[in-house]
Amino acid sequence: MKPLMIGLALLVTATTAAAADDPAAKPRTMTEILLASTASDWRTPDPQNTLYMELAAGRVVIELAPNFAPRHVANIRKLVSEHYFDGLTINRSQDNFVVQWGDANGEEPGMARSLGSAEPKLPAEFTRMFSQDLDFRRIADIDGWAPQIGFSWGMPAARSHKTRQAWLTHCYGMVGAGRGGAPDSSTGSELYVVIGQSPRQLDRNITAVGRVLIGMELLSVLPRGTGPLGFYEKAEQRVPITRIRLAADVPESERTRFELLRTDTETFDALVESRRNRRDDWYLNLAGHIDVCNVPLPVRPISK
Amino acid sequence: MKPLMIGLALLVTATTAAAADDPAAKPRTMTEILLASTASDWRTPDPQNTLYMELAAGRVVIELAPNFAPRHVANIRKLVSEHYFDGLTINRSQDNFVVQWGDANGEEPGMARSLGSAEPKLPAEFTRMFSQDLDFRRIADIDGWAPQIGFSWGMPAARSHKTRQAWLTHCYGMVGAGRGGAPDSSTGSELYVVIGQSPRQLDRNITAVGRVLIGMELLSVLPRGTGPLGFYEKAEQRVPITRIRLAADVPESERTRFELLRTDTETFDALVESRRNRRDDWYLNLAGHIDVCNVPLPVRPISK
Repeated sequence: MKPLMIGLALLVTATTAAAADDPAAKPRTMTEILLASTASDWRTPDPQNTLYMELAAGRVVIELAPNFAPRHVANIRKLVSEHYFDGLTINRSQDNFVVQWGDANGEEPGMARSLGSAEPKLPAEFTRMFSQDLDFRRIADIDGWAPQIGFSWGMPAARSHKTRQAWLTHCYGMVGAGRGGAPDSSTGSELYVVIGQSPRQLDRNITAVGRVLIGMELLSVLPRGTGPLGFYEKAEQRVPITRIRLAADVPESERTRFELLRTDTETFDALVESRRNRRDDWYLNLAGHIDVCNVPLPVRPISK
Repeated sequence: MKPLMIGLALLVTATTAAAADDPAAKPRTMTEILLASTASDWRTPDPQNTLYMELAAGRVVIELAPNFAPRHVANIRKLVSEHYFDGLTINRSQDNFVVQWGDANGEEPGMARSLGSAEPKLPAEFTRMFSQDLDFRRIADIDGWAPQIGFSWGMPAARSHKTRQAWLTHCYGMVGAGRGGAPDSSTGSELYVVIGQSPRQLDRNITAVGRVLIGMELLSVLPRGTGPLGFYEKAEQRVPITRIRLAADVPESERTRFELLRTDTETFDALVESRRNRRDDWYLNLAGHIDVCNVPLPVRPISK
């Protein structure tokens, strides 16, 4: 078999073999950069900002983005603490677009599950102020959708000096809060995740609330729905959600232990460059460019 | 349920209800543009350039790109005519990257299936000449990977006046010929399709041979492989290919009958603009931009 000598698993282990004997001798690959990283290049997500979505197929780990959508994140925490999502379903799988979950009967009069003590209405949080305290590691690559792109608190993001706004970008794995026609019609009770080519036209049009860190492969393979917009047409096609919990509410022994590469370090800059211009022998033409949605955000397990 | 009022099924039927009563009154949506299209806006793919990949789950329809990879396309036609792929398997499914098929034993000494009368070695066809006869409908949007982008004979493409080259761009659904370390090590016997964020760094580094027109949802949902690069670790995880045939070699009564929107018309230009700036009520902020890999390429069934 000719194994297309491209790509790299993103879940790296600290024990991966092979290393650069002399890092200065040639441009480093992503693997080499990760192997040379130090403890301070990595971070452990805050359990208060981490969701576990438990499916029959396994656990999906989501990091919330309170710096961009504080009201939505607070509402999601409330919904989760009251077990709102438990027993609800994944209702939509639209090829090259999104997988979406929530209350399949949410719009049936008298059938919707109560939001409990969560807010029934929230302001739109499509953007946030581009203020001094905004974490933003810019990448200089041009982008057609935004004046500047980069990474903010570990997530792909954009900003505009002109409008003084910053926002999360709809890349693969980003999670957002579904809304109807009104901009303030999302509550966080209906969530979607991007499973295809980045639908950046959603940026600044809907509230992004976080990102899937682990388990995308459990969501991206769900059979596509055959109804309009990829909704499942029959109730039995929907995928049950066993439960969603805040990591902080799960006993430590049951938590998924992993670290994420920080996005505000020189190691991260080097990683971006290693992917902007792939200097291994396979690539003949260097791209000289990377899209904000092509930058890998490595995760590594840590021993218990 | 709050159905995220976004997206649109790409397989439209000629009988879809709802239309713009007065097309001049406001910018048209994609649906309205398609409903107002005329017969000359559509084309029927050449059966000599169309593959049917038959899986247990259904048929995948692929259009070949002889204008970009004539030698590879000729070799694939030869392989298919001699039933090379029949009984081989899909061996790789890497999340957010590619699904790949071919001979799982192709690199085991003495185990590889014979290529028959197909060429065992081909030149790389990463780019073609940017000549007078190049069909190219440019879209003016900026692109970080190429000086100019657009559509060429119905497929997403790029070109450079400086190098006088044109090439197909690695968007969702594009099909390419896997290769090893040597640029001329692909034969068309090992094929992959993009199932995630466009890996444009592959452009000009590997030979793209076509595009999936129908059936992406059969490939994109295959369970991800857990081996390196997403290869399946066990033989029983591989997905059997019943057969691959050239449409021209299939009885007319068994062919999939459909049309594709042409990409060299004013209707197509209007469609691109309708997606560059979504003017329906849901969108509050117009993007003012579209990525070449975000442009839908509509398919519609035609009655037998």
